[in-house]
Amino acid sequence: MTSLPSIRALTFDVFGTVVDWRGSIIAEGTALDLDLDWAAFADGWRAGYQPAMARVRSGELGWTRIDDLHRLILDSLLPEFGLTNLGEAELDHLNRVWHRLRPWPDAVEGLTLLKQDFVISTLSNGNLSLLTNMAKNGALPWDCILSAELAHHYKPDPEAYLTACHLLDLAPEQVLMVAAHEGDLRAAAAVGMRTAYVHRPTEYGPQHPKPWPKETFEWMATDFVDLAEKLNKNTGRNRDN
Amino acid sequence: MTSLPSIRALTFDVFGTVVDWRGSIIAEGTALDLDLDWAAFADGWRAGYQPAMARVRSGELGWTRIDDLHRLILDSLLPEFGLTNLGEAELDHLNRVWHRLRPWPDAVEGLTLLKQDFVISTLSNGNLSLLTNMAKNGALPWDCILSAELAHHYKPDPEAYLTACHLLDLAPEQVLMVAAHEGDLRAAAAVGMRTAYVHRPTEYGPQHPKPWPKETFEWMATDFVDLAEKLNKNTGRNRDN
Repeated sequence: MTSLPSIRALTFDVFGTVVDWRGSIIAEGTALDLDLDWAAFADGWRAGYQPAMARVRSGELGWTRIDDLHRLILDSLLPEFGLTNLGEAELDHLNRVWHRLRPWPDAVEGLTLLKQDFVISTLSNGNLSLLTNMAKNGALPWDCILSAELAHHYKPDPEAYLTACHLLDLAPEQVLMVAAHEGDLRAAAAVGMRTAYVHRPTEYGPQHPKPWPKETFEWMATDFVDLAEKLNKNTGRNRDN
Repeated sequence: MTSLPSIRALTFDVFGTVVDWRGSIIAEGTALDLDLDWAAFADGWRAGYQPAMARVRSGELGWTRIDDLHRLILDSLLPEFGLTNLGEAELDHLNRVWHRLRPWPDAVEGLTLLKQDFVISTLSNGNLSLLTNMAKNGALPWDCILSAELAHHYKPDPEAYLTACHLLDLAPEQVLMVAAHEGDLRAAAAVGMRTAYVHRPTEYGPQHPKPWPKETFEWMATDFVDLAEKLNKNTGRNRDN
């Protein structure tokens, strides 16, 4: 560990790591005057996410933003959930619920702490405009917004991580990937990035608590405030630029 | 005017428009223990900027970041200014003075006001890491960092502006380019963006005050606070996302 360079920037997975996508969709949906199982709807929408990105990865679809993938999945869910009578403006607004996802309770405080010592950035499959709007809606204090969109490669493709490091003008060893998902961290580690796992046990709902992973990553944190404390203890304050 | 869509985002030229490059370089240089005409040095460095970008535009150089162009120009100035005895670490630190440029006195207040109603972003020829570090050093409250680097085309090439609008997921008519330079605004208008001129009379030093341009742009402002007042009066608060 002592031979590793100082960490200069933290890049964050967003859906599930920074924001509670499931709880946010359920809350916004429940506020509408529609008789719907919003938990099942949120789960169905999210279940379409990996297969939709796989269509881009395979080349079946050219580069397609998450906003547009979300809309493809949404359209496919409408009959099952009895939403076929929604108009275009309503559908577009519903699709953009992903721009309005709410941060986990510790996220803004933790990011504000981490921002004192590091460059903090998104590194999400969400498109840049989605992430920018989400930050504005949720007061997320990013230093910059990085996205798989800038690489035209979705995570976990290595290009998504390497493009982010290149734009930050840092070696992968100087960048810490923060995520609640092991596959994301494994892919970041494979290109030489550092890794921090943050546990979000209720990402898939209180009925389906997620266990801690069997794998150990360089940092293991219960939330972003805990991560800030652990990094501060291990690295000291290192902002010098 | 009434047929134009609402402005949703503001993109800002940075060197000279948001930050005082000349005054910052003079101030930082003067604090060093070196006998040097820092005003002449700053002017010489900046004078190399357009020719260096022209080498990229012509294809003589492949895509090269402003950090690296700044270093090429810096290296060429060293003999003239008697700086040949600086070591690599000192030269690298000096080159990164562009990451530490200070905002004009109204900039942070004005951006904070504008951020209430619009997405605010850089749209600079500076590379993304330079702009990110500058924002951290100067407390510039950007919603996102956009750069010519993301298009691999320097302004005033149309690709630089169009890539920014595409990443914001907005039509050019929904994006207001803010700059203290007429050529930048003309190029933005040519791709359909809206334009706001902000007057920075001392960009080239108090001995060389810049006159107001003869051209009129959609908005003409004395500084960012004035721009915020004028936009608020003309458009009302329009944030709805």
